[in-house]
Amino acid sequence: MEAVNLKKKEPKIVVAVDESQESMYALSWCLANLISQNTTANLVLLYVKASPPVYSSLDAARYMFSSDVIMALEKYGSEQVNSVMGKAEALCRKLNTNIKVERIVGSGDAKEEICKIVGKIKADTLVMGSHDYGFFKRALLGSVSDHCAKYVKCPVVIVKHQKQI
Amino acid sequence: MEAVNLKKKEPKIVVAVDESQESMYALSWCLANLISQNTTANLVLLYVKASPPVYSSLDAARYMFSSDVIMALEKYGSEQVNSVMGKAEALCRKLNTNIKVERIVGSGDAKEEICKIVGKIKADTLVMGSHDYGFFKRALLGSVSDHCAKYVKCPVVIVKHQKQI
Repeated sequence: MEAVNLKKKEPKIVVAVDESQESMYALSWCLANLISQNTTANLVLLYVKASPPVYSSLDAARYMFSSDVIMALEKYGSEQVNSVMGKAEALCRKLNTNIKVERIVGSGDAKEEICKIVGKIKADTLVMGSHDYGFFKRALLGSVSDHCAKYVKCPVVIVKHQKQI
Repeated sequence: MEAVNLKKKEPKIVVAVDESQESMYALSWCLANLISQNTTANLVLLYVKASPPVYSSLDAARYMFSSDVIMALEKYGSEQVNSVMGKAEALCRKLNTNIKVERIVGSGDAKEEICKIVGKIKADTLVMGSHDYGFFKRALLGSVSDHCAKYVKCPVVIVKHQKQI
């Protein structure tokens, strides 16, 4: 095989972020190891919100009640997005000053949505944290990182949180 | 979460290599994206040979025959190791001159052996190629990269071969 230089001038690196410590650890690893201080990179922080529940509009009383609940949930959801993105951006500023940071917020099933968005924006690399679940928890919950490693076309980095750090 | 700088001075990066184009592609990706020209790194090329078959020594005729076959297979195996390692080292020289390259050859089941060695030598990152198998082939053959992504403690990079390149 010929030597292929796969270094891009401005690689687009997606880091999937959520409320977990694991995702912030993965972001730190990415900033330290994948993005050199001497090159520019486009870092995309990707957060996927759960889909809002669907309520029936046929039952008037429940609908009135639901709209309040939906609004409260939506407000809480937006605050959560801002909180996670804010933390992630603060980490970026602390560890690497030479990158362009962009936010993308998806909605739906996290693993499906991450694969879809990574393909759509033609990312060069996807970085994800991973919970170090045991056999039963993994079988029960499935794993977002397993799924993405299978179905995403670009290189995928799975970073496990080292508890001693 | 506090900003954690996870950049090591001389990270130990293991790249699992074999006869496949996928593994050489993964090595090229690693050299271009994970190892900066300005830092030193210890790159470990890890090749896992299949275990030799076990023959019975009770049947004298078969034993005589088998020893020839075993010798021929062992010679072929060593040539294959040298050929793969040679190609990998040539790629390293072409793409990055600032690294120390080391060879490790394991023997046994590839996925078990890779996990074992990566843990034993306390690698900082594991890089692997991945075949883009369909559902049935994956179910039949299993996947070395899936297994390692689950069981290795350090960050794992799974690089899929882009056929257009």
